[in-house]
Amino acid sequence: MSSEFDLIRQHFSRDVHHTDLGVGDDGALLRARAGMQLVVSTDMLVAGTHFFPDTDPEALGWKTAAANISDMAAMAAEPRWITLALSLPSSDDKWVSALARGFASCCESFGVDWIGGDTTRGPLNLCGTVFGEVPHGQAILRSGARPGDDLWISGTPGLAALGLQHLLGKLPLTGEARTACLAALHRPQPRVALGLALRGVATAMLDVSDGLLGDLAHILEQSNCGALIDDALLPVGPACLACGNAELARQALLGGGDDYELLFASSLPQRQHLLNLSQQLSLPLTRIGTITDAPHTIVMQAADGSRRWIAPRGFDHFGENV
Amino acid sequence: MSSEFDLIRQHFSRDVHHTDLGVGDDGALLRARAGMQLVVSTDMLVAGTHFFPDTDPEALGWKTAAANISDMAAMAAEPRWITLALSLPSSDDKWVSALARGFASCCESFGVDWIGGDTTRGPLNLCGTVFGEVPHGQAILRSGARPGDDLWISGTPGLAALGLQHLLGKLPLTGEARTACLAALHRPQPRVALGLALRGVATAMLDVSDGLLGDLAHILEQSNCGALIDDALLPVGPACLACGNAELARQALLGGGDDYELLFASSLPQRQHLLNLSQQLSLPLTRIGTITDAPHTIVMQAADGSRRWIAPRGFDHFGENV
Repeated sequence: MSSEFDLIRQHFSRDVHHTDLGVGDDGALLRARAGMQLVVSTDMLVAGTHFFPDTDPEALGWKTAAANISDMAAMAAEPRWITLALSLPSSDDKWVSALARGFASCCESFGVDWIGGDTTRGPLNLCGTVFGEVPHGQAILRSGARPGDDLWISGTPGLAALGLQHLLGKLPLTGEARTACLAALHRPQPRVALGLALRGVATAMLDVSDGLLGDLAHILEQSNCGALIDDALLPVGPACLACGNAELARQALLGGGDDYELLFASSLPQRQHLLNLSQQLSLPLTRIGTITDAPHTIVMQAADGSRRWIAPRGFDHFGENV
Repeated sequence: MSSEFDLIRQHFSRDVHHTDLGVGDDGALLRARAGMQLVVSTDMLVAGTHFFPDTDPEALGWKTAAANISDMAAMAAEPRWITLALSLPSSDDKWVSALARGFASCCESFGVDWIGGDTTRGPLNLCGTVFGEVPHGQAILRSGARPGDDLWISGTPGLAALGLQHLLGKLPLTGEARTACLAALHRPQPRVALGLALRGVATAMLDVSDGLLGDLAHILEQSNCGALIDDALLPVGPACLACGNAELARQALLGGGDDYELLFASSLPQRQHLLNLSQQLSLPLTRIGTITDAPHTIVMQAADGSRRWIAPRGFDHFGENV
C-alpha cells in the first residue's frame, strides 16, 4: 500500500507554469499580478451526495476541477491555481492515478496550476479550492442585476440532469443522446471564456450548479429584484431531443443542476453583442426573460401569455426543496 | 432543518477586516499587498481519522483553523484568509454554531479573515484552505537545512499525544496534567509569532503534525542531509511531569503529532538570538541536535554517548509506520 506521502508525490506533483513553489512544502507559493484581485472559492464533492461511489475516477477528477473552475468563470475571473484535498477509504493506486489524471486534465485545459493538496483516510470526499484573478473592480457579482435587464443562460442546460436520471434507472437513453447527457454530467465544461468575455457586459452572474431556478433566486435575493421567465424562450430543444419528452426536458432545464452553465443579467443594448459573442465562442447564449422590480419573485409566462408565480426548485443539500 | 444556504448565512458570515468581498457570492475577493508572495495550504480533518466523532464541536472548529494556520507559521507567512468546506451527516444548528464559533475564534486570534466555504451532506469532514502573505523570497522552506546547522523545536511537544492516549483509555491522567494534555490536543496554538520572527533566521522549517521524527524526515529528504539528535537535550520535562513515565513522555515527544510546534534548523551564530526570542515570546525554544551530511539519516545520541540509527516514526494516514 502506498503511503500518504507517496500518493502525493506520485500523483499530485504536476508541472506548474505560473507558480513559484508547488507541491511538497507546508504551503505553495504564488504571486498575483499587479492590479489584480484574487478570487477564491471552495467546493466539496461527497460520494453518495454529489456522485455515485462507483463513478469513473477520471471523470470524477475532471468534474471536481470543473466545478471549482466554474466558480471563477461565474466571477469573470481567470482561474489560475487550485488545491485538492482528498479523503479516501483505501489507497488504490490505480484509482488515485485515474482521479489525478482527470483532475489534472481539466486544470490543464483551463490553464490552472495544481499547486497542492492533502490526502487522508476516510469516506470518499474531494475538496477543491480554486484561485483566480480579475482586474480590480471587474468581478461580476450576484448583486448587480437591475429591473429591465435581460436574463441569459449559456449552453444547453438540462442534459446533466437527464444523465443523472438515466444513471438512476429512471430514464432510458441510448446512442448519441445517452453520450451527450452523460458527458454533460461527467465532463462539464466550465464557461471560462464566456465569463471573461462578460466583463463589463453582464450586470450579475453565477454558475448554475443547483438548478436554474434555485440559483436564479440567489441573484434575485442579492440584487433585490425579481424575474419574468418566458417559457417559449427556454433552450429546451437539446434536452427534449435527448429524452423525447418536452415537459421532462423543461423540468431538467429549470430544476436540474450540474451543467455548470452561466446565468447572467445584462442590459438591453448588449443583445446584439451577446449574439455575436455566442457565435465567436460557438456556445449558445439564450435570452430567457427579464429582471423585474418585484423582489425575490419569479414569474413564468406561458406560450399563451398566461403568467404564474413559481417556486424556485434548487437542489439544497440540507433543506427540503422550497 | 436549516437549509444549506441558511447554515452558511447564519454561521459562516463573519466580519472581515482585509477582504474586499466575503461570504455570499461564487467566490471571495481579496488583494495581496504589494511585494508579497501568497502562501496557500489545505488541510482536511476527518472524523474517525483525525478526531473522535463526538469531539466537542467548538474545540474541533478551533483545531481545524489552527491546523491550517500552523502551515502558514511553518512557512514564515502571515496568515490572512481562510475558507472552510464542511460535510455533515445532518444539520444540527447547535453543533454547527459551536463549530463555527470555535473556528472563528481561532481565526480572530490570529488575524485571519474567514472568507467563505461550502456545506454539504455527508460523513463528517472539515477541509480548510488558508492563505498567507510573505515578503517575496522570505518564506522558509523544508529544503534549506545545511550540515552543521542546529536543530530546534518550539514549545512542549508530546502533550497532545498523551491527551490522545488518555482519551483512548490507555493513559490515566488527572488534574492539571489532564487539562494541559487535552488543551494541547484540542486547542493547539499555531506558532505564528515565532514563524514570523524566524524569517532570515531559520534555514528550514515545518510544523510537527505527524510526529517530530516523521516530520524531521521531510526536512532531511528535501534538504538532502541527516540529523543527530541528542537525547539529553529533548524537552521531555512537561510530558514527563504529565504522565509520570519518562520513556512514554519521550515516545510522545518523538512520535506523537498534533502539537503543531515548529521544528527548524538554524546556524550556530543564531543561538543567543533564539534564546532571547524564546524569552520575548514566552515560548520554550529547545536545541535538540544538529544537521549532518549523512543523507536522510537520523541518529540518536544517548546520555552515555552511544549512538544508534533510528527509524522516523511519523503517523502516516495510509502507510505502515516506517
